[in-house]
Amino acid sequence: MAIAGPLKLNFQLLGPDGPAIGPGKALVMEAVDREGSIAAAGRALGMSYRRIWLLVESLNRQWRDVVVETRIGGGARLSPFGRELLDTYRNIERRMVNAAAGPDLDWLIAARADPD
Amino acid sequence: MAIAGPLKLNFQLLGPDGPAIGPGKALVMEAVDREGSIAAAGRALGMSYRRIWLLVESLNRQWRDVVVETRIGGGARLSPFGRELLDTYRNIERRMVNAAAGPDLDWLIAARADPD
Repeated sequence: MAIAGPLKLNFQLLGPDGPAIGPGKALVMEAVDREGSIAAAGRALGMSYRRIWLLVESLNRQWRDVVVETRIGGGARLSPFGRELLDTYRNIERRMVNAAAGPDLDWLIAARADPD
Repeated sequence: MAIAGPLKLNFQLLGPDGPAIGPGKALVMEAVDREGSIAAAGRALGMSYRRIWLLVESLNRQWRDVVVETRIGGGARLSPFGRELLDTYRNIERRMVNAAAGPDLDWLIAARADPD
């Protein structure tokens, strides 16, 4: 979920079996990249091992190339394709957040009620 | 939820008590505008009366002016402020969907796995 001030954006690309990428999968990819293993990524995100494993499995099934590579002896990393996928997703997301800016967004922000 | 081909967008503007507007509230506003009453709007959206009433109450509380006006003797409609709020939300949403288009979105779409 991209959050820019009061603006919250959830952008997904759908595949035949539901979302092929969205905010949750992007966070998983970033965590695997940072942590170097699926289990450590799950812990960093507060997800059960089962949940993150299912997300990784879904990523690897829904794209034409492998996204998260596991290594014999443990550890995991983003494939070059996974890196391009993540960067592309984040670029599009950033463009959408930037496109929201303008006088009408300023109007919307100012039109909210004052907190009680 | 705006859907443009395989792209799905959920854009919310947050207030102090959570989302002040998002896809669900925009649908409620459109349904009230079309149906002329909160109960009929709820039926059209397949929502319980309690659920749509809470969404309308949240809209009217979270913006500086009333959004949905109820009329003595029944019926409801969007206020002029509510109309401007809805149009502004849809304009920003449309701009975000348009901003997603480009070679990187085309790449993303083409990079999905073929259906099994």
